[in-house]
Amino acid sequence: MTQTIERGTAARTPQERVDHWLATFEHALAARDVEAAAALFAIDSYWRDLVAFTWNIATVEGRDGVADLLGERLADTDPTRFVTTETPTEADGVTEAWIEFETATGRAKGHLRLKGDEAWTLLTSLRELKGHEENLGERRPQGVSHELSKGRSSWKEERAAEQADLGYGTQPYVVVIGGGQGGIALGARLRQLGVPALVIDRHDRPGDQWRSRYKSLCLHDPVWYDHLPYLPFPKNWPVFAPKDKIGDWLEMYTRVMEVPYWSRSTVRGATYDEAAGAWSVTVDRDGESVELRPTQLVFATGMSGKPNLPELPGMDVFKGEQQHSSQHPGPEAYAGKKVVVIGSNNSAFDICGALWENDADVTMVQRSSTHIVKSASLMDIGLGDLYSERAVESGVTTDKADMIFASLPYRIMHEFQIPLYQQMAERDRDFYERLEAAGFDHDWGDDGSGLFMKYLRRGSGYYIDVGAAELVADGEVKLAHGQVDHLTETSVVLADGTELEADLVVYATGYGSMNGWIADVIDQETADRVGKCWGLGSDTTKDPGPWEGEQRNMWKPTQVDNLWMHGGNLHQSRHYSLYLALQLKARYEGIPTPVYAQQEVHHLS
Amino acid sequence: MTQTIERGTAARTPQERVDHWLATFEHALAARDVEAAAALFAIDSYWRDLVAFTWNIATVEGRDGVADLLGERLADTDPTRFVTTETPTEADGVTEAWIEFETATGRAKGHLRLKGDEAWTLLTSLRELKGHEENLGERRPQGVSHELSKGRSSWKEERAAEQADLGYGTQPYVVVIGGGQGGIALGARLRQLGVPALVIDRHDRPGDQWRSRYKSLCLHDPVWYDHLPYLPFPKNWPVFAPKDKIGDWLEMYTRVMEVPYWSRSTVRGATYDEAAGAWSVTVDRDGESVELRPTQLVFATGMSGKPNLPELPGMDVFKGEQQHSSQHPGPEAYAGKKVVVIGSNNSAFDICGALWENDADVTMVQRSSTHIVKSASLMDIGLGDLYSERAVESGVTTDKADMIFASLPYRIMHEFQIPLYQQMAERDRDFYERLEAAGFDHDWGDDGSGLFMKYLRRGSGYYIDVGAAELVADGEVKLAHGQVDHLTETSVVLADGTELEADLVVYATGYGSMNGWIADVIDQETADRVGKCWGLGSDTTKDPGPWEGEQRNMWKPTQVDNLWMHGGNLHQSRHYSLYLALQLKARYEGIPTPVYAQQEVHHLS
Repeated sequence: MTQTIERGTAARTPQERVDHWLATFEHALAARDVEAAAALFAIDSYWRDLVAFTWNIATVEGRDGVADLLGERLADTDPTRFVTTETPTEADGVTEAWIEFETATGRAKGHLRLKGDEAWTLLTSLRELKGHEENLGERRPQGVSHELSKGRSSWKEERAAEQADLGYGTQPYVVVIGGGQGGIALGARLRQLGVPALVIDRHDRPGDQWRSRYKSLCLHDPVWYDHLPYLPFPKNWPVFAPKDKIGDWLEMYTRVMEVPYWSRSTVRGATYDEAAGAWSVTVDRDGESVELRPTQLVFATGMSGKPNLPELPGMDVFKGEQQHSSQHPGPEAYAGKKVVVIGSNNSAFDICGALWENDADVTMVQRSSTHIVKSASLMDIGLGDLYSERAVESGVTTDKADMIFASLPYRIMHEFQIPLYQQMAERDRDFYERLEAAGFDHDWGDDGSGLFMKYLRRGSGYYIDVGAAELVADGEVKLAHGQVDHLTETSVVLADGTELEADLVVYATGYGSMNGWIADVIDQETADRVGKCWGLGSDTTKDPGPWEGEQRNMWKPTQVDNLWMHGGNLHQSRHYSLYLALQLKARYEGIPTPVYAQQEVHHLS
Repeated sequence: MTQTIERGTAARTPQERVDHWLATFEHALAARDVEAAAALFAIDSYWRDLVAFTWNIATVEGRDGVADLLGERLADTDPTRFVTTETPTEADGVTEAWIEFETATGRAKGHLRLKGDEAWTLLTSLRELKGHEENLGERRPQGVSHELSKGRSSWKEERAAEQADLGYGTQPYVVVIGGGQGGIALGARLRQLGVPALVIDRHDRPGDQWRSRYKSLCLHDPVWYDHLPYLPFPKNWPVFAPKDKIGDWLEMYTRVMEVPYWSRSTVRGATYDEAAGAWSVTVDRDGESVELRPTQLVFATGMSGKPNLPELPGMDVFKGEQQHSSQHPGPEAYAGKKVVVIGSNNSAFDICGALWENDADVTMVQRSSTHIVKSASLMDIGLGDLYSERAVESGVTTDKADMIFASLPYRIMHEFQIPLYQQMAERDRDFYERLEAAGFDHDWGDDGSGLFMKYLRRGSGYYIDVGAAELVADGEVKLAHGQVDHLTETSVVLADGTELEADLVVYATGYGSMNGWIADVIDQETADRVGKCWGLGSDTTKDPGPWEGEQRNMWKPTQVDNLWMHGGNLHQSRHYSLYLALQLKARYEGIPTPVYAQQEVHHLS
């Protein structure tokens, strides 16, 4: 008893507390004692698993959730060897630890937060499959054989032969539709894992997804957030990279990482052959029709989905130009012209700003409230602890930052976000006052949780200000309000009767759900079976419930066999491509992958 | 006295011993007491300075050398703030420390070895100029202005305008002739330092220097040795990269690092205009003649210099093909042909191996003894402590490895090398026995110090075996000996009368000194003023004395104002490009750069 008292919570170091928790947890798991393991979690607790236990991306809540997950998955997973990888720390009553462990099939990393002696949050993530480790570091390829032999091929010849054969003689196991940052990052990981894959993209060359956009576009996220896997940007890379520089990087990355990639290629259709267990994918490859027969099909066509173009009375009557924001060619042709931009999110602001710089007469039509944060404030307050030079210098590597971010359960993430946005409101008070004085309808999200939650929930409703919001605050870009009632030959007429003369109307009216691409490429029935993509089911604006716990359909099994969705910003493309690649690799190697808590479809779009 | 005894050498920790030495040294320097400072060095001691004190690359020896250097350079340099950057270590009676300090103009790093309380070796290296720090990490560019303005240019437009203007409207301060790894690494550093520079290269695109060589070529040095500045290879990069893969890397590196680079451009001539203090450089730029007016001219045309083609009786009579090894197009056309390769160094072995693989009948003519080491042994024993996965994992970063290598004075470097090659001889005893049994004349260098000393002294006389030496040992590639006496219409006849039938003769007869390029581009008189490049003056074969202490003319001021030589392997291109770039930057900024111990010319070629 004396010993028990001495070793009570208060007397223990964080290391002792975590070691004790891990040992007790592992003991319960080894004994297959689900209830004992669940009892180690707090009443309010969250276990987020990235493929390590669930062959899924899933979060369970509370002891019941833990017991359910373990009840289904413990025996197969057979987790062992839980250890800390650095000294745990404690602050504000929460003990934090970085951990590693093994499963029957793989090696995993994780993160643990204890409140007292009970787990509050647990993140478990699969990092590699045993026997299928990546050829990195000590395992890197030799590059040359030191034994000469007759008729040996060079690297260049082997690469050329492989490229000529792929899709004709040899079928890829995975076809990735879309070769932006998402498709390229996934392609690089699959290449490293030895999974035959092919990335298909309609542009002339990798990077054109960025190059083809309006000329002043720069990344809105800072460099520390944007690294691709394996090959980080150099230390001289700009904080906010211009789009053509990112285009160059993606092009060279594709080449250097030897990602199999078809440019100038468009997928015309795809059908699944149940009997053969393979897709038939028809590709227009620079004019040649090629049929591919992959086992797995990944849509990496952009989390934004297909453009939403409204249907408005008078669109057929209007004599000027009309275009969706995604079709906007840049401002050069519109100096001196009257332009009406419908919408007030990121694209609308970027386009208004560039048009103003080129001396167009610009009016923004705000239809609903928008959340704006200053880029510098978002960088300092929103990302600074994880993604900044300061974070790098204090030892927060990109991988560590990704894991910390992933360790915060979506259910409570807004609680961490709200105070950050309160700080931003304080810091930029003058800006918000001026913006509202100019008539701009500004919000901070339904619950004040700001930009990142809006991004995760609905992927819209915000602008990271890199200058254009100041133009609205200053009246340089004019502002109008309300829905569009109709167009005349020469103007846009709003619901309140306001008439805006226009030579050009830009519909910055957003994008549909990603499963719209599935309807186009496969059919509506398959799109409906997959259902809405993105969003959490938070029951906030444009993110209807029920609560789903994870982003719908992203990087995890969908209701359609062998069909996967990949997308998101550079951070997500980097981090979640790992888990998607490991799921594909396991299937390629014939490793059983029983999916825990397969998500249900609650919304079609 | 008690304290003195207590604090004697034996009782002190390595940290205390180094702190004491540094404090005493700094005190003597602050007092401008040259003798006191020199007295802190051992009788046998070496101070190697890379630009920090000397605006030169120079090594002084013993107390007299130290006193001489300080006598000339102490007041200007004004060194202060000597500190250790990590805990010093001790082994075998030698204390080692990593140090930092400042000078009047810059920040410097260094390495110190004490024997007892006296300095045995000191390395001092300038790392940056105060007020001219590179824009890296926290100082990286923003990439976008967050204030919009009318008529703002995009990054792409600015880059295009700069490229169109450079060499026409705006003159580069530096022209670098040659755009292989040396020119590219220097170009990247100058770009980072804000020195207007232009790299000129005759090939179609960066990387063709490697792509254009024979198809089986791979780097003979391992990946850890080969990183370029700023952007290391990813962890999946092969140990020995194939030439086309290196070509791709150099091409993308040039683009990503924004190195100003003219491809398809050949320098036709250059003259120095004393009055204007500028070069006139005539360039054939893809058919257009352009005159450039740079202040500084750098030759980065390859440390190998121009090909040595022997003049032999009968060369005009021989009816087959003849070519220097540098012109060899690869083996494809020679299946079934008789080929005689004159020479037995790296190029000869590589070409013989590739020809054998393509079913040619190959004879190597060995004219003098050659040093061979197995690539794997060289990697493990010769480089493993500094450049390997093991080194990386034990904290030896590339920069640290470069500095450790640089810290070994050339005068005594062979003493460190000899035991390594004794280990290699032991490990590969069977191979060497078979090689000698096949009649191959093998050596370990004049003093048994092996490959790297041969490289530094003469740049020739060796082969890193990646397979072809085994073919000679096995008799698959035939071996003949002696000088060539003459050629007949169909054969090569050696001094001993041996006649070798030949369809092709390859002269793998090496290269001249780099200053041969100067003779071609400028004139012979200027080439002679610069004198022989490369080599140490070791008075060993092909490296005549007197002792020079550093590699002749490389990366430091030559006897011709504003004319510089840059070259070497990837390791040297990476490390020494820093010091060359800082010397050029200082001159660009008008910082005084009085050169200590300007080297004299003892040999013309």
